[in-house]
Amino acid sequence: GTKGISLFVVPKLNADTLASNNVNCGSIEQKMGIHGNATCVLNFDGATGYLIGPPNEGLRCMFTFMNFARLGTALQGMAAAEQSYQGALAYARERTAMRALSGPKNPQQSADPIIFHPDVRRMLLTQRAIAEGGRALIYFCAMQGDILNSGNPTEEEKKEAEALMSVLTPIAKAFLTETGFEAANLGMQVFGGHGYIAEWGMEQIVRDTRISMLYEGTTGIQALDLLGRKILGDRGTMLRFWTRVMHRFCRDNKNRKMDEFIRPLRRYYREWASFTNKIGIKAILNPEEVGAASVDYLMYAGYVTLAYFWAAIADASYRALEEGTEEKAYYEGKIKTARFYYKRLLPKANSHRELMLSGAKTLMDLKIEEF
Amino acid sequence: GTKGISLFVVPKLNADTLASNNVNCGSIEQKMGIHGNATCVLNFDGATGYLIGPPNEGLRCMFTFMNFARLGTALQGMAAAEQSYQGALAYARERTAMRALSGPKNPQQSADPIIFHPDVRRMLLTQRAIAEGGRALIYFCAMQGDILNSGNPTEEEKKEAEALMSVLTPIAKAFLTETGFEAANLGMQVFGGHGYIAEWGMEQIVRDTRISMLYEGTTGIQALDLLGRKILGDRGTMLRFWTRVMHRFCRDNKNRKMDEFIRPLRRYYREWASFTNKIGIKAILNPEEVGAASVDYLMYAGYVTLAYFWAAIADASYRALEEGTEEKAYYEGKIKTARFYYKRLLPKANSHRELMLSGAKTLMDLKIEEF
Repeated sequence: GTKGISLFVVPKLNADTLASNNVNCGSIEQKMGIHGNATCVLNFDGATGYLIGPPNEGLRCMFTFMNFARLGTALQGMAAAEQSYQGALAYARERTAMRALSGPKNPQQSADPIIFHPDVRRMLLTQRAIAEGGRALIYFCAMQGDILNSGNPTEEEKKEAEALMSVLTPIAKAFLTETGFEAANLGMQVFGGHGYIAEWGMEQIVRDTRISMLYEGTTGIQALDLLGRKILGDRGTMLRFWTRVMHRFCRDNKNRKMDEFIRPLRRYYREWASFTNKIGIKAILNPEEVGAASVDYLMYAGYVTLAYFWAAIADASYRALEEGTEEKAYYEGKIKTARFYYKRLLPKANSHRELMLSGAKTLMDLKIEEF
Repeated sequence: GTKGISLFVVPKLNADTLASNNVNCGSIEQKMGIHGNATCVLNFDGATGYLIGPPNEGLRCMFTFMNFARLGTALQGMAAAEQSYQGALAYARERTAMRALSGPKNPQQSADPIIFHPDVRRMLLTQRAIAEGGRALIYFCAMQGDILNSGNPTEEEKKEAEALMSVLTPIAKAFLTETGFEAANLGMQVFGGHGYIAEWGMEQIVRDTRISMLYEGTTGIQALDLLGRKILGDRGTMLRFWTRVMHRFCRDNKNRKMDEFIRPLRRYYREWASFTNKIGIKAILNPEEVGAASVDYLMYAGYVTLAYFWAAIADASYRALEEGTEEKAYYEGKIKTARFYYKRLLPKANSHRELMLSGAKTLMDLKIEEF
């Protein structure tokens, strides 16, 4: 267990004598990516360690930076999507192959830029929707941190910011690293065979971001943290802080233009609350139901959470266009990407719902020797 | 276009004089994986080429090996899933972390093997279902090849084998490389942080198999070949050869034991035929609908195709158990994996259906400057 763990700092030089503290690098790990970040086997041959915090409270002490590190990792997933999108977009505008299905767009040349092909657009818009929606989610989390750390919150504001931060941290970490990796792979796919060659830079993004689904707690660990500890462990109270934010937004934006976003968003966050109850009841009878549902639960939560942020982006874009702006294409592009998100990514939540509700039986039925 | 292309062989030594033919390696490409396979820039400085086949028929000539290469690539995707499954399964049986959610399985040690965690089983069974279902699909394709090449087929048998081969080749190639890559990533995920370190061998499978979604025609190209050329281009005739195989199986296996597989399989292949018509009608009005639907159409086709093979595996397993066998665990494991497939993977077809039917508008609406 984790009960006996204490936290120590072991400096390279002994803090008193400034002589070598006998901390030696045994070997450098060969990793899939992040080659600029050397992971070492460290040997502590009689080195002096200095206790941080109380004895046996090491894990708790470590978690003071862990929550921060998890949001940082979410940022890494989002950044992979953004970086890969920028590369793929530039390539798709220049690279020509075949004719557009609706007829030549570039008659003076023998082929059209691949950005005219619907499936290339599907890949680019997926990358973009993850990058920009994910950025909004991370800003929102950062704002909760500001309320807690730099603001002067009332007790109620503090409670809300803490609840939102608790629920959104595992969602941001796991969902944005999973979809960020997916987006990085789509960027490589837009490049075709060139994407597999190192000099184009796309494969490095895939390799570098792959670790984000592993470190600071894997996707599976984030999912258990979300569903088991944060949501069911708190009888849904923390989740209600988040669905209330979505509820207020839907209530305040009932207008014809926003209807295409508000209607599905409302349906999804209500459904989210309702099947959370179902899983809670199943979990009382069989705790394995939590582990069986957790990753699909988290992915569902991620798709619905990003749907809120895309609705908010669409709303802000409509306002900017109404007030008059010189960046018309920018805001029109945002609204159209929000539409893409609702039609082409959000429905993925439906199969995650179906999978999580299918129960633990098909997973746990196999005996060890039947694998 | 492809009209002017002719196919040449350019040997290293001139075929007449046996002197150097001036074919030189300009540089070796640095790739994400398959490092044992050197991809070179070749320079042909006045080298002599020898025409293969008729002039201007190069692309057609090349396709005589392309179909074979596509099935070989499908095999690569399946093999990645299998290899990664073997590694992850061995690790999951040995590696201990936390307690099983339903209570200690290994009370004499401080933690349980991770194979007792539901989410680890979800990952392992996904790998297994792709590997073993994919193997059945590839064997079936190989059997069609045998009918055509080694058998003495009647005209009708030949027509059926050709149609099945045509429809199943792009499905096998794209679906098994996409899901094989997913399975390889799940294998790495089972290892946690260790999976990212080269010495465990899991990250190499991910890197090596990533190219399978790119070469011999990307997933996007396979999808256009399937939906545009093979299915709509033939007014659904080739598809009917495949749905007829599923139909016969369902008709001949109406019994209580098989009901849990037969019912959903029948629903899916009927639905497949029915929305193919819908897309065909939309495509007449707007050819971009084909490109907008194609990849999700292919993934749907893949999930339903593998569902047939898992039903066939379950059926064969029931027969073996009825006849009496010493490999009871083997066949029980197969039936339980078939159940897992139907409850935990096949429902993904539903969101692919929803995405493909959402139409081309959200993709094509963006002007170039709005990206």
